[in-house]
Amino acid sequence: MTFMFKLLSPLLFFTLSEDKPPLKKKIPRCRKNMNPNQTVEDESHPSITAASRRIQCLSLHLTPLPPSQPSPQLNMLTCAKAANKLEVDKVSLSTYMRGKNRDIQEKIIEFFESRPDLQTPVGVSMNEHRELCMRQLVALVREAKIKPFRYVVDDPAKYFAITEAIGSIDVSLGIKLGVQFSLWGGSVLNLGTEKHRDKYFDGIDNLDYPGCFAMTELHHGSNVQGLQTTATFDPVTDEFIIDTPNDGAIKWWIGNAAVHGKFATVFAKLILPTHDSKKVSDMGVHAFIVPIRDSNTLQTLPGIEIHDCGHKVGLNGVDNGALRFRSVRIPRDNLLNRFGDVSQDGKYTSSLPTINKRFAAMLGELVGGRVGLAYASVGFLKISVTIAVRYSLLRQQFGPPEQPEVSILDYQSQQHKLMPMLASSYAFHFATQYLVQKYSEMKKMHDEQLVADVHALSAGLKAYVTSYTAKSLSTCREACGGHGYAAVNRFGSLRNDHDIFQTFEGDNTVLMQQVAADLLKQYKDKFQGGTLSVTWNYLRESMNTYLSQPNPIIARWESADHLRDPKFQLDAFRYRTSRLLQSVAAWLRKHSKTLGTFGAWNRCLNHLLLLAESHTESVILAKFIEAVHNCPDARSRAALKLVCDLYALDHIWNDIGTYRNVDYVAPNKAKAIHKLTEYLCFQVRNIAGELVDGFDLPASVTRAPIAMQSEAYAQYTHHIGF
Amino acid sequence: MTFMFKLLSPLLFFTLSEDKPPLKKKIPRCRKNMNPNQTVEDESHPSITAASRRIQCLSLHLTPLPPSQPSPQLNMLTCAKAANKLEVDKVSLSTYMRGKNRDIQEKIIEFFESRPDLQTPVGVSMNEHRELCMRQLVALVREAKIKPFRYVVDDPAKYFAITEAIGSIDVSLGIKLGVQFSLWGGSVLNLGTEKHRDKYFDGIDNLDYPGCFAMTELHHGSNVQGLQTTATFDPVTDEFIIDTPNDGAIKWWIGNAAVHGKFATVFAKLILPTHDSKKVSDMGVHAFIVPIRDSNTLQTLPGIEIHDCGHKVGLNGVDNGALRFRSVRIPRDNLLNRFGDVSQDGKYTSSLPTINKRFAAMLGELVGGRVGLAYASVGFLKISVTIAVRYSLLRQQFGPPEQPEVSILDYQSQQHKLMPMLASSYAFHFATQYLVQKYSEMKKMHDEQLVADVHALSAGLKAYVTSYTAKSLSTCREACGGHGYAAVNRFGSLRNDHDIFQTFEGDNTVLMQQVAADLLKQYKDKFQGGTLSVTWNYLRESMNTYLSQPNPIIARWESADHLRDPKFQLDAFRYRTSRLLQSVAAWLRKHSKTLGTFGAWNRCLNHLLLLAESHTESVILAKFIEAVHNCPDARSRAALKLVCDLYALDHIWNDIGTYRNVDYVAPNKAKAIHKLTEYLCFQVRNIAGELVDGFDLPASVTRAPIAMQSEAYAQYTHHIGF
Repeated sequence: MTFMFKLLSPLLFFTLSEDKPPLKKKIPRCRKNMNPNQTVEDESHPSITAASRRIQCLSLHLTPLPPSQPSPQLNMLTCAKAANKLEVDKVSLSTYMRGKNRDIQEKIIEFFESRPDLQTPVGVSMNEHRELCMRQLVALVREAKIKPFRYVVDDPAKYFAITEAIGSIDVSLGIKLGVQFSLWGGSVLNLGTEKHRDKYFDGIDNLDYPGCFAMTELHHGSNVQGLQTTATFDPVTDEFIIDTPNDGAIKWWIGNAAVHGKFATVFAKLILPTHDSKKVSDMGVHAFIVPIRDSNTLQTLPGIEIHDCGHKVGLNGVDNGALRFRSVRIPRDNLLNRFGDVSQDGKYTSSLPTINKRFAAMLGELVGGRVGLAYASVGFLKISVTIAVRYSLLRQQFGPPEQPEVSILDYQSQQHKLMPMLASSYAFHFATQYLVQKYSEMKKMHDEQLVADVHALSAGLKAYVTSYTAKSLSTCREACGGHGYAAVNRFGSLRNDHDIFQTFEGDNTVLMQQVAADLLKQYKDKFQGGTLSVTWNYLRESMNTYLSQPNPIIARWESADHLRDPKFQLDAFRYRTSRLLQSVAAWLRKHSKTLGTFGAWNRCLNHLLLLAESHTESVILAKFIEAVHNCPDARSRAALKLVCDLYALDHIWNDIGTYRNVDYVAPNKAKAIHKLTEYLCFQVRNIAGELVDGFDLPASVTRAPIAMQSEAYAQYTHHIGF
Repeated sequence: MTFMFKLLSPLLFFTLSEDKPPLKKKIPRCRKNMNPNQTVEDESHPSITAASRRIQCLSLHLTPLPPSQPSPQLNMLTCAKAANKLEVDKVSLSTYMRGKNRDIQEKIIEFFESRPDLQTPVGVSMNEHRELCMRQLVALVREAKIKPFRYVVDDPAKYFAITEAIGSIDVSLGIKLGVQFSLWGGSVLNLGTEKHRDKYFDGIDNLDYPGCFAMTELHHGSNVQGLQTTATFDPVTDEFIIDTPNDGAIKWWIGNAAVHGKFATVFAKLILPTHDSKKVSDMGVHAFIVPIRDSNTLQTLPGIEIHDCGHKVGLNGVDNGALRFRSVRIPRDNLLNRFGDVSQDGKYTSSLPTINKRFAAMLGELVGGRVGLAYASVGFLKISVTIAVRYSLLRQQFGPPEQPEVSILDYQSQQHKLMPMLASSYAFHFATQYLVQKYSEMKKMHDEQLVADVHALSAGLKAYVTSYTAKSLSTCREACGGHGYAAVNRFGSLRNDHDIFQTFEGDNTVLMQQVAADLLKQYKDKFQGGTLSVTWNYLRESMNTYLSQPNPIIARWESADHLRDPKFQLDAFRYRTSRLLQSVAAWLRKHSKTLGTFGAWNRCLNHLLLLAESHTESVILAKFIEAVHNCPDARSRAALKLVCDLYALDHIWNDIGTYRNVDYVAPNKAKAIHKLTEYLCFQVRNIAGELVDGFDLPASVTRAPIAMQSEAYAQYTHHIGF
């Protein structure tokens, strides 16, 4: 393999051009904030008045200027190193970023640091990896005495903090832990009743009862209501009989099933005998505890056929299996009966009136998985951005003639790849913290409004964040070139392990439709005078404002003060969302008459997904702006403000077509937004090292030799044996 | 793992709305082409005249219409299955797509089909994989008697066809083959002279001499001129002494080095003794043949230290290693002396006057690697799209109430993910065929203009295609949900193996800069009255036209006939390129005065990359339009035209902001482009199965159980043991 390059010699033509330099104007009053090499070019500042001076001072940084030194090539680089660089206090920044559960995270990380036998080697085989993951999990619970299960319901923020730290040790381990405590354990706690908790809590907690969450079937993933496994009640023996009626109903991708699971929560249609002509009645999908392996011998129990799903793209430390049931009998008590129960004589009782309501209640209890994935995904994004930024600061390639080579992070293209991503990592950090907080409140209060809000918020953030992280992991690999391709530098395994975050716990495309559906419901409620849930509040406040014609004067404002005003940024995001919402509602209404509900929805699907994305971005920005505002330390606040501005303006620029189409932004303003975005990229680059330090990731978490804070290359050569 | 879904119940609101249906107009004359359920809605067709009838007939298909059946939900789906579906003759389509080297490809594929012992198992360990790849390569050459080396120079099209077929067996094998014949072998043929050919040809050809291409160093990948390894001439012994002066100069990522290589072409600075005060003179980077292992024992030779680069993200069948040289002596004859030679008394001779020219000539000879990667990348894109499309046709999930579930390819969102990708696969197929043809001509004719053209074209297509394929492999995995995550379904290994295609043989970001630099050179030549190379010709023809103000009347044209006119499409692509070129030239000229050449280039880097991308897209579209035009079979031509229209309009829509900003496209036209793009997606979906069949990939190439043409699910369950 090799990397080739040809000199950019044609470029020399441009330095030989005979045009005269454009006129420059000096602006005496704002020297204080300026680099001595800077001045102002005509084009971006046609009129200079006292009033506009401050605005100008801010925006003229866009154009670094004519050199007094003999070496003009270095000017931009000098700029990059000195000009306008914010001072960042890493300690105060990382203190602000730390959650209140940092202690337990540190304890976990120190435990694994102290145990080289529990660290996952690069290139481990699937079978070794599975056994190692089990050993890691057992050691966590029994040796480090960290028992996550109790926090699943009682302190979700702590539970998610544990999974974040565990995921940073090995993503497979994080998922294995999630399967055990959040999916299998969570189904028992959330869908069962006291008797289930009494019987299973300790065994799940101390890993005596490793278990599975057997929902997905070969033919049905997203469409859970289409599951075909049956659980038929037999009043004679007071048992349910679990059956796989056809190959499409084989439970597939079931974590912990291939090797370690002793129990499974099986989702199946509850079939009750009736006295009418149909003889049976389908009560919809319910959850049942089914023992699948002998607790002592680990032999598969009679009537159950288990096969190994085999190698996956990633997460090969998790033993996914496929299960077929042939008349497997379980006691009636094994129905997880919180939302619906069957009496000894086969009568069905429930506090909820319809199948759909019971189904919704059941799935609603499982929303914690999405919260966890969104939160964990931000963790992987931070690790990846940290590695890419540190290496981009270390790596030097090319440079001005007769000068040392420059850091690749000094290239505009590299800034363009990594700085908006760094900004997004901060944005997502605050948004998912908010989500965890809301989810924790919900688990305490069970307020209906809050439940709906957390449901849509978790769907939107899980889908948005995991899609973004997945793309970013690839971008980071590319940005780190050949050395990014070494397995030891992490991008490959992070990407492969994280990839499925986009699919499990709700396929992202499906989740985004739920967000859109929820927005449409809110929109309807608004017209019917109902209340809006918290996250959606802006729609009520502003729908009318937003949907009037854009103000043609504001559409031309282009000063940096205006563009960096959170009000302008949030207004722009929300305007886009409101407009998309109003228009898709109209289209749906129109198409539903000819195509029916399903057809109309499908006809508007891309539009609906865009709406959901736009809304989620609005929520993220709002939370970021709040976080900037609430930051107590002035220097950290200034740094966060810079990052937040980049986040906002980069998004506006990326969808500039929409804004231009409706004249929300005039051509001059579009140009100013683009210019300011590039400038902010450059400014964020100046503090990029400090910003990734702000994530405060221990070296045992980043691990990649190319990201080491000292002697990265030496550690890399040492790694392969030099 | 699980996939959850919540009913889209809020949507029901929209079908209950009380608004009256909008007026419809029936258009009597164009019934022949219409679905009986279709009619025309007001909004898109304000005036109906005889003249515009045909245009309307074409464009009104955009709105499927009020049902005569009792089940409106099925309308869209019925549409999807019957309406306006083109008839595609698969045989004539695949015949048109086949290259003239199909025979040898079939021979290779049949050979590996007949040898299960040579097929790479899923989850193979790195060491086993490396040995397997060597065995595969040896079997190809010695048992199947297919000897690719002779075609590297004599029949490049045949060589690339072989690598495509070999890459479809195992990407690692394809790269191992490329290292041996194209890099190591190619360096001997292209940089050496007759004596080298005589001495090494047979050994390379029959694999007695496995070799390496040792260019990249730890500190230098893209910047080849920055290499630090030295080759110092010792006139006393008539030898060169190869040295690694520091750790940064360790040769890194060298394929075949960790295990199998016996020789390496080492790129090093040629140092000659002089009689002046400096004592030595650096003649720039040259290539030298260095034996690295004993031919019989395979023991590493004295003075050479080799370490294993270890696990990579992918391509673990290739044994990449790192080499350090300590005063390793090689005979003077081992200098590959085509572009520069050293006499026994240490005098340097060359037909080329400067270090830069020699360097450019040397790298210019290595451009074949890029051609091969672009070509191979399209092959992986085709495999991936085929798997994703076939599975999306098979997989059903959700559906209208009380109706069977629908194929996931019937969802607009899935069409949006996969149909433009399918269109791009076709577009890239024709573009890379053209590249291979030009490259083959270049190898025969050595015309200077052609060399420059192929250089820029290969840089642009390699970068553009591999970046696109890399993203698409991820998109395909997501589009196939959980089953896309099974290793056996290919997306993981394809992505991991292909990933580095974006980096090796020239980092894509660097290559795109070469394209931009070349365009600027052409732009300069234009103003100096020079000739333009073939690919760039459109710039001369059209720069003036394109850069005048857009025609405000055409900017409003919105008929399907106009939008599907190749002239409109190509004009739009070229307009964008020309505009970007003109503006970046002006910015570079301006900034170079203050920032110097290097600083100005960096200041405009994002703009330059956009220019290169835009130009490459223009070339791809032009070749696609030509290919449509040249297709002899009318039905295949109609299908290709549809696909080409989608390719063109999807791109225009994706950059609609640019077109709107300069009023090249008026708002009504932008809307029409969007609508037509969605319609074309839907139309391409209707023949998606036939289009992937057109790639004519044998089942042993696609391999993924979920993509099997019969009983895909059964093959998948069978695979894991049911």
